[in-house]
Amino acid sequence: MTTNEALKIYRENIAKMNALGHAMGVMHYDAATVAPAESAEGRGKTLAYLSGCTYEIQTGAALQEAAQYLNQHKDELNAQDRREIEVFLRQNEFTAAIPKEEFVGYVKLLNEADAVWHKAKLDSDFTAFSPYIKDIFAANIRFAKYYKPDRNPYDTQLDRYERGLTMEKTDAFFNALKERIVPLLKKVMAKPQVDDSFLWGKTYPKEAQKQFSEYLMDVITIDKKRCSIGETEHPFTTMFNKKDVRVTTHYYPETPVYSMYSVIHEGGHALYELHSGDQLEGTILRGGVSMSMHESQSRFMENYIGRSREFLSLIFPKMQELFPEQLAGVTAEQMYLAVNKAEPSLIRTEADELTYALHVLVRYEIEKGLFDGSIAVEDLPRIWNAKYKEYLGIDVPDDKRGVLQDSHWSNGNVGYFPSYALGSAYGAQMLAKMRQTVDVEAAIRSGDLRPITGWLEEHIWKFGSLYDPMELLERALGEPFDPKYFTDYLEQKFTEIYDL
Amino acid sequence: MTTNEALKIYRENIAKMNALGHAMGVMHYDAATVAPAESAEGRGKTLAYLSGCTYEIQTGAALQEAAQYLNQHKDELNAQDRREIEVFLRQNEFTAAIPKEEFVGYVKLLNEADAVWHKAKLDSDFTAFSPYIKDIFAANIRFAKYYKPDRNPYDTQLDRYERGLTMEKTDAFFNALKERIVPLLKKVMAKPQVDDSFLWGKTYPKEAQKQFSEYLMDVITIDKKRCSIGETEHPFTTMFNKKDVRVTTHYYPETPVYSMYSVIHEGGHALYELHSGDQLEGTILRGGVSMSMHESQSRFMENYIGRSREFLSLIFPKMQELFPEQLAGVTAEQMYLAVNKAEPSLIRTEADELTYALHVLVRYEIEKGLFDGSIAVEDLPRIWNAKYKEYLGIDVPDDKRGVLQDSHWSNGNVGYFPSYALGSAYGAQMLAKMRQTVDVEAAIRSGDLRPITGWLEEHIWKFGSLYDPMELLERALGEPFDPKYFTDYLEQKFTEIYDL
Repeated sequence: MTTNEALKIYRENIAKMNALGHAMGVMHYDAATVAPAESAEGRGKTLAYLSGCTYEIQTGAALQEAAQYLNQHKDELNAQDRREIEVFLRQNEFTAAIPKEEFVGYVKLLNEADAVWHKAKLDSDFTAFSPYIKDIFAANIRFAKYYKPDRNPYDTQLDRYERGLTMEKTDAFFNALKERIVPLLKKVMAKPQVDDSFLWGKTYPKEAQKQFSEYLMDVITIDKKRCSIGETEHPFTTMFNKKDVRVTTHYYPETPVYSMYSVIHEGGHALYELHSGDQLEGTILRGGVSMSMHESQSRFMENYIGRSREFLSLIFPKMQELFPEQLAGVTAEQMYLAVNKAEPSLIRTEADELTYALHVLVRYEIEKGLFDGSIAVEDLPRIWNAKYKEYLGIDVPDDKRGVLQDSHWSNGNVGYFPSYALGSAYGAQMLAKMRQTVDVEAAIRSGDLRPITGWLEEHIWKFGSLYDPMELLERALGEPFDPKYFTDYLEQKFTEIYDL
Repeated sequence: MTTNEALKIYRENIAKMNALGHAMGVMHYDAATVAPAESAEGRGKTLAYLSGCTYEIQTGAALQEAAQYLNQHKDELNAQDRREIEVFLRQNEFTAAIPKEEFVGYVKLLNEADAVWHKAKLDSDFTAFSPYIKDIFAANIRFAKYYKPDRNPYDTQLDRYERGLTMEKTDAFFNALKERIVPLLKKVMAKPQVDDSFLWGKTYPKEAQKQFSEYLMDVITIDKKRCSIGETEHPFTTMFNKKDVRVTTHYYPETPVYSMYSVIHEGGHALYELHSGDQLEGTILRGGVSMSMHESQSRFMENYIGRSREFLSLIFPKMQELFPEQLAGVTAEQMYLAVNKAEPSLIRTEADELTYALHVLVRYEIEKGLFDGSIAVEDLPRIWNAKYKEYLGIDVPDDKRGVLQDSHWSNGNVGYFPSYALGSAYGAQMLAKMRQTVDVEAAIRSGDLRPITGWLEEHIWKFGSLYDPMELLERALGEPFDPKYFTDYLEQKFTEIYDL
């Protein structure tokens, strides 16, 4: 075998895996958007077959031998190919440690779990979904142990979503947040609350909300020829290549802001994928490097851009045009205050910037407990509700608005939640760095966000997975990660809004 | 090898092909409904890979040997298995005659053609699409010749969609129709036209039209847990298994009837698939046996049920509820007359029952000409427009409403069009037969269509592809096919409506 031959074999097999992943991705997207309720069974069979094909290609002799050969001849590879082989072998180690039947069985389990979760959430029926939580967590613990028998399995999970992350680091991070956020929230709660009553209690027709979504996609510079919007119970973003990215949202007739911030948040994910470097296309290095880096981009758009005073001023005329009766007499400044109202609430995805990290903390602590056995699945609703009482001071009325609210566990995303809080904190530090060269407020006021998106493309997006997340972050920031940028941002913003 | 071993190998391979077909089907559906415009390139690569896998399984030694073994041991098989092997070998003969690169290349060509056609239709730009027509027809002619070198390739195409069909039979069929329809249409045109002005020129909001679709699905007894509605440029139905069927429609704000009859038409296709016999599931015998039989069911629902006086009476209160201002002062009888207005028009899918077959005839004659070389692709717009002038007496203003209107050629459905007219005629004869045991009008009046759908399930749907279409039809009818039932129906209906 020569290096060129090995590269050819490697690439042919990656192309096959990409094709299978693409097909499975479209089937998942279809399942979440438009597939009929009883379609899960047939889809499960097909996904099982396709994931089995993927497993066989990935762990098959041809690809393994080629990758090993290339690893032994690293010095003959260019930097990108070298990095790709390194990442492939690292990912491969995890997959290859799982027996094929378990790998395929897990794909079937998740397909079934997703359908059951959708129904269980609608019915607020925890017991219908709890057996799946049990099985999904058990599988994740088992897989983590196959892969790294000597490491704590939750550390393995954290590391899979964010290379280098451990419980120790995550605990320290959340402690740093709690220290500043909890007293800040107390001060906010002692002040008169901002008025957001005009955002609720009226009807915001779906057709007008859809037009608003299209407008928002344009404002945040999304190329709609390469990215479409679907509707799902829980908004998400999925991507097949840089010409085919999908965001989803959920329209609630009683308020325009839920879908508005879903579109901007998912739009942030989409931008990251749409601007992955051309030379990475078709390789496993294309697209966002980690979940935290992804969330840093989505929450950057959602909060640092989308909840800024300038952004609300920019888009308010369009809101008034689409919802003239509903917003009669409301000003852009009132809208800015309303979308930044900080108060403990039930639903993570609707939480304000200040309380958001506390929602994530609840989930992080629960996942740790499920992994170390200190929490039993049966007790989840009770523990969930107790933690919401403890950290947010509120009572959870039902599991639909409690432990069943998120789609992550049914999708197998165990160990993912900390990414949201980390991503917010990464983003705040990026904002501070960006300000050194970009007049962020002026760009938003002008309606042309390209100075902002240009910075993100140049420092984050274009690199795909060329660097591990912490390296990418430090290259962009010019200094190590520090959560104080995030807590400083929160303190400044909410001090101003609530006149603390 | 034993028969049981051979059956096991056969079934395993069919299951793999089903899984691949399912994934490709979802990708096609996704492409037509929600995929972003530039996604075609990536999808083309994936479909090429998956179709290559299908080809390899289908023509691979394992499946071929098992099928041949089973064919040689037919007497050990039950009737269903025997039939399945027979159908498999027949289909296989066609596929195996095509070299793999051509097979895969054709899948890529169609994927590209579909994207180009969508844009070309919007832009009314024939020259953008014409190279694809050329390539698609050339491929179909080539494939037909690989398969049956000594048969006229258009006869081969007709036979593929409707086993036993030839140009000779199709010519005779269309001549029988023309003989009765052309003079009938002349008489109609000499009479005062019915008033359908209330169906046009007002705005029928999409959300209300969507609610109307959901209602119509219920009325025609579609189980929505197993069948969802999407939106596409051109309505169609696709099916992955009997728990996962998709219909699509297109909402035009200027009229409710386009989507209404799309939903009922596609609903007829869906019912056929949703009621395929349970014991056929997972085999290649599941679902509708041929395109004509399929169209017989869709046009049965659309016309013999959906355009009957009783059906309009039944659903009119719902129409008035959803469109109170638009339909103020209109009666159910006026609506019945309006949706049965017969007059030459531009668009096949919107054509009335009387002129519909003439639209099909235009396409049939053009396909014949493209196959025998008497028509050049460059001349298509001119010839299309000349034939519309000749048969329907109207001028075609642009290619968007002319030769570019249908999606069939971009999807490779060459030789399909006659199915629509044949299906209409099959359906008319089924209606006559059904009337011997079912009070069709009483069932529609009652709002419970199950006596009608029950007859269709019992005589058509449940059999899937257990019989060739002509055998299935004659079993259901108790006599040979005769187009006079269709022309009698048209004569009676339009004589009454137009007081001829």
